[in-house]
Amino acid sequence: MNKKAIASVANSVRALSMDMIQKAKSGHPGLPMGCAELGAVIFGEVLKHNPKDSKWIDRDRFVLSAGHGSALLYSLLHLCGYGVSLDDIKNFRQLGSNTPGHPEYGMTDGVETTTGPLGAGFTNAVGMAIAEAMLAEKFNTKQHKIIDHYTYVLSGDGCMMEGLTSEAASLAGNLGLGKLIVFYDDNGITIEGSTKLAFTEDVKARFASYNWQVLSGDAYDVEGILKLVAQAKKDTKHPTLISLKSVIGKGSPNLAGTHKVHGAPLGEDEVKAAKKALGIPEKDFYIFPEAKEYFKEKAKGWKKDYDSWTKTFEAWKKANPELVKEWCAFMVNGTFEDIKLPKFNVGDKIATRSASGKTLVSLCAAFPNLVGGSADLAPSNNTVVPDNGDFSKENRKGRTLHFGIREHAMGGIANGLILHGGFRSYCATFMSFADYLRPTVRLAAIMKIPTIFILTHDSIYVGEDGPTHQPVEQLESLRVIPNTQVIRPGDAQETEIAWLMALGSQDKPTCMAFTRQNITVYPKDDKQWKKNMLKGAYIVKDCKGTPDVVVVATGSEVSLAVEAAAKTRKKVRVVSMPCRELFESQSAAYRNKILPKGVRVVVAECGVPTGWKGYAKDEDILAVKTFGESGKYADVAAKFGFTADNLAKIIKRK
Amino acid sequence: MNKKAIASVANSVRALSMDMIQKAKSGHPGLPMGCAELGAVIFGEVLKHNPKDSKWIDRDRFVLSAGHGSALLYSLLHLCGYGVSLDDIKNFRQLGSNTPGHPEYGMTDGVETTTGPLGAGFTNAVGMAIAEAMLAEKFNTKQHKIIDHYTYVLSGDGCMMEGLTSEAASLAGNLGLGKLIVFYDDNGITIEGSTKLAFTEDVKARFASYNWQVLSGDAYDVEGILKLVAQAKKDTKHPTLISLKSVIGKGSPNLAGTHKVHGAPLGEDEVKAAKKALGIPEKDFYIFPEAKEYFKEKAKGWKKDYDSWTKTFEAWKKANPELVKEWCAFMVNGTFEDIKLPKFNVGDKIATRSASGKTLVSLCAAFPNLVGGSADLAPSNNTVVPDNGDFSKENRKGRTLHFGIREHAMGGIANGLILHGGFRSYCATFMSFADYLRPTVRLAAIMKIPTIFILTHDSIYVGEDGPTHQPVEQLESLRVIPNTQVIRPGDAQETEIAWLMALGSQDKPTCMAFTRQNITVYPKDDKQWKKNMLKGAYIVKDCKGTPDVVVVATGSEVSLAVEAAAKTRKKVRVVSMPCRELFESQSAAYRNKILPKGVRVVVAECGVPTGWKGYAKDEDILAVKTFGESGKYADVAAKFGFTADNLAKIIKRK
Repeated sequence: MNKKAIASVANSVRALSMDMIQKAKSGHPGLPMGCAELGAVIFGEVLKHNPKDSKWIDRDRFVLSAGHGSALLYSLLHLCGYGVSLDDIKNFRQLGSNTPGHPEYGMTDGVETTTGPLGAGFTNAVGMAIAEAMLAEKFNTKQHKIIDHYTYVLSGDGCMMEGLTSEAASLAGNLGLGKLIVFYDDNGITIEGSTKLAFTEDVKARFASYNWQVLSGDAYDVEGILKLVAQAKKDTKHPTLISLKSVIGKGSPNLAGTHKVHGAPLGEDEVKAAKKALGIPEKDFYIFPEAKEYFKEKAKGWKKDYDSWTKTFEAWKKANPELVKEWCAFMVNGTFEDIKLPKFNVGDKIATRSASGKTLVSLCAAFPNLVGGSADLAPSNNTVVPDNGDFSKENRKGRTLHFGIREHAMGGIANGLILHGGFRSYCATFMSFADYLRPTVRLAAIMKIPTIFILTHDSIYVGEDGPTHQPVEQLESLRVIPNTQVIRPGDAQETEIAWLMALGSQDKPTCMAFTRQNITVYPKDDKQWKKNMLKGAYIVKDCKGTPDVVVVATGSEVSLAVEAAAKTRKKVRVVSMPCRELFESQSAAYRNKILPKGVRVVVAECGVPTGWKGYAKDEDILAVKTFGESGKYADVAAKFGFTADNLAKIIKRK
Repeated sequence: MNKKAIASVANSVRALSMDMIQKAKSGHPGLPMGCAELGAVIFGEVLKHNPKDSKWIDRDRFVLSAGHGSALLYSLLHLCGYGVSLDDIKNFRQLGSNTPGHPEYGMTDGVETTTGPLGAGFTNAVGMAIAEAMLAEKFNTKQHKIIDHYTYVLSGDGCMMEGLTSEAASLAGNLGLGKLIVFYDDNGITIEGSTKLAFTEDVKARFASYNWQVLSGDAYDVEGILKLVAQAKKDTKHPTLISLKSVIGKGSPNLAGTHKVHGAPLGEDEVKAAKKALGIPEKDFYIFPEAKEYFKEKAKGWKKDYDSWTKTFEAWKKANPELVKEWCAFMVNGTFEDIKLPKFNVGDKIATRSASGKTLVSLCAAFPNLVGGSADLAPSNNTVVPDNGDFSKENRKGRTLHFGIREHAMGGIANGLILHGGFRSYCATFMSFADYLRPTVRLAAIMKIPTIFILTHDSIYVGEDGPTHQPVEQLESLRVIPNTQVIRPGDAQETEIAWLMALGSQDKPTCMAFTRQNITVYPKDDKQWKKNMLKGAYIVKDCKGTPDVVVVATGSEVSLAVEAAAKTRKKVRVVSMPCRELFESQSAAYRNKILPKGVRVVVAECGVPTGWKGYAKDEDILAVKTFGESGKYADVAAKFGFTADNLAKIIKRK
């Protein structure tokens, strides 16, 4: 290793980071300065990558889980030759730039995931490492290894403290993800001061308890770091934590090692002093010529490796025409042609969670790259997929994941599977516990990735398990997340379409709400309902002429509404609205067709009324305004007014 | 120890649990049967408690973190003589009974907290143990120890897998909570099957890494358990984990040790078989006479200890009149008489987070039992309270908690502090990360406890940190949680009132949304505004006669609305609505006074529009419908239309 060149890269990273943060008057210099050498080693000596093809499927992944250190990442991406220009660097944290405050997936070339909420990146990386293991098992042959890469993570104290990291790390150990390598920037400082204030655990022992290989060293011993990486790679059965003692803000003569350097610009004087101390010329956005030269040389090596992989890949393609077909099914968005969905008939009594389970089995047959599982509720969430086996340390062929009782990590891992490329992923829990994984729905929505969240037991109809297990506000709380498709199908037939909508999405996550209890498949007056459900709402039961009342319902309340409508002498139309936001994005013509202007609307949904207030008067919304109660579900439903008689009363009321 | 009596208690617990679950046709027999002996030992031999005074401040706390095992708890509460009758047991999981599916605080005598969402109870217990340490330090004297009790937890595999447990355990180790003792029911089984599927970490080594004392034993060696508890108590510097190997559903001849026994009734035949195998007479809800006799005897001892404590307490009161005054300030809801709030004047430019910080300092002076802290964002959340010191292993006098970067555990610990009794608690993070702690807001709301959540950086005005750090949907997503007071004050003066509302609440949590950016204190036309803000909304700026337009705004948009109104020639009224739900609960007269019928309403709030659709037409709501962007906050605000000019344009539009 050219230690001098690495030093020049490190100090170029420091120079760029200090300047971009100073210019923006905003940012976090502590990590980029403290980890400059580590970053140089990772991007220069460790990563298998090709800045000219940042989507190369067999590249090593690098996840900056400590996303606030974005200046480090942007500096290195620039130096390596990714699509991050010096002007981009100068526009750090400015509106419209591709160098936002925290790394954003899809916004910046070379950024593998959106980080900032701590622990999120770590968790995504576990999903990426699972994806690598699955693809390698599926596509590598004795002759050709086309998938063989590592997932690297840089985590700080914050990531280590967050619970979702613990969840993901424990699962990574269970799964023996030997190609996951995490660098822990152990600088002993957080925003409030020394980590002693709140964080005196033995992180290394903790990771050892998760069945990780644990190594440690010095963040400034660049040769040592390389040796540790080699050692990490040697252990193919365990993920590796490389704990590196570091100094936050290293290079800042007056602030290094203190929490003052974590999240604010150094100030012009301190930047000047740091540059002087580090031997950086007093020029803005200075890059050492040795650093440029170093990466120029590196690029040659990267190209060689990339070309060699391409050759292998071409040879593999020639040798394995059947596998190539499967490869295409993984890498290209699937088609819906060959799906054989289960058949549900009008009158069938079946919980939508069961209908979902049956549909999922069909879809898994049609989509070989659809993988996922539940947070230990597979039998209840109906996510048991036969004939696939479990993904485990011993069986990399398995498609079913056992996430354990770790909802938050589950969501992050499901996101990571998609971010890696090659997979569609689903995950599942009780809807009430969507609260535990909510941050990952948000991140999927921000990243515009189509993760699927299966949320069963979707209302007070859960019954005996009581208020902690009965969602009331969750449905609405998911709907308010931008760029998120929330679908609550009204029966088994609608459930199938919901799944097609979820799999059809390319740019947003989908949350599906399914019932625990049986509900009856209803006849649909709209013969085009399958098409119209894709518009968010359609007419289930119509009346002659202009209706007196339109009842808008979702999920289990659609059949209730049909039943209630039959109990009145009014002209009632019943509308199923499984996806409200989608309906609201339709043309005014379609919306008026479903909800004619001036016609009274009654809404029935077993959850909070908040989002329906634009549709109906308060007294015309049958909703749940308090937490639920423990009891037989029919008793609970009756107590909250969810009976056909009560809904009929509301419909009849003028 | 009378081992025979303990065995009879254990089998009575099994008999009651099997029968109540079978009768309800719903419930979780696995834990009650597997932990029957442990439960008997804890309630009979370990706990210092008095079933006749379940609110005794110096009782040991017992938290069933594995809340699905509620049948265990109800059986033991009944046997001990708490207010849980045999009829209650027979009404297990029925609507209106005090024996709901999962334990609910405030519903059942002797239940210390609501559990069910896994990890929640463990986290509350850490808060309870902190409360004990704080009260002991504050009130015990050399002569009299009036606070001296333990917090016991029973956790299963689920609790151990959840990330929030890891967070709370790490902090408990950091704080050296020597009187926290956790039993780990290590039965190797979860819903999906063996814990090997997803959970092969070394839990004991993990807890050792958190600086816990770790002990282990057999769940059926009752004398051994007692010895382990004694050993746990001996180590006063570390919390203790007692890991006990157990068999799920022990006693069920055909199902014990399998996941089938976790969450469904055994079935009548298996109940019969189990009773036969266990030597339980074939009677419904059978209790062994030896078990009754045992607890009758125990009650005498409990009374003796309780009476002795009462004597000590009386003696302490006599000896310490000054401390008694403070005791009352802790134990009785505070008054607002002596508060000296900071003075904010019209025209002051100050972020509401700063105003909150100053107000908090005043309130801490007035409320000696107000404690809390931030998830490592104290300098940003403005929760640094001077002169109090940090609560730490070394300093039990401290009132400021450093939660570390552990939002979820923070919320649970803040809840636990209140559940213990004696404290009001607050916790703080960026509003965007409210998603991480959301489950604890819900639990506080279900439990009707007044935890205070300080959420700063409340909109896209966060600026450079970008979409991951810019709340958009959070405000609305918190409002939809039932029984939750969400307040977004419009300036520094309103911030003070918000705090008084938060502290004034006795039966619901409060979430307060504060700005990062400076905003100007505005004059209020309503001279009764302080009183009317308690109604959720009041008139900031009025016009002569009936307004053409009423602009409803919250937070930073109130001053924007005032500015915008001045740019139009319309008769505009500006309403600040810091707490929408509260306003909606007012009389029609008050609501009509603020929002006269038939007058057009324009809404301005820097978040999703969902909850405002009942107030104004879509085009009259200035809101944020997508995620934010990274950039200077003024640029971001302008991009999203949050300028006085743009709002004026909306107001002027017909």
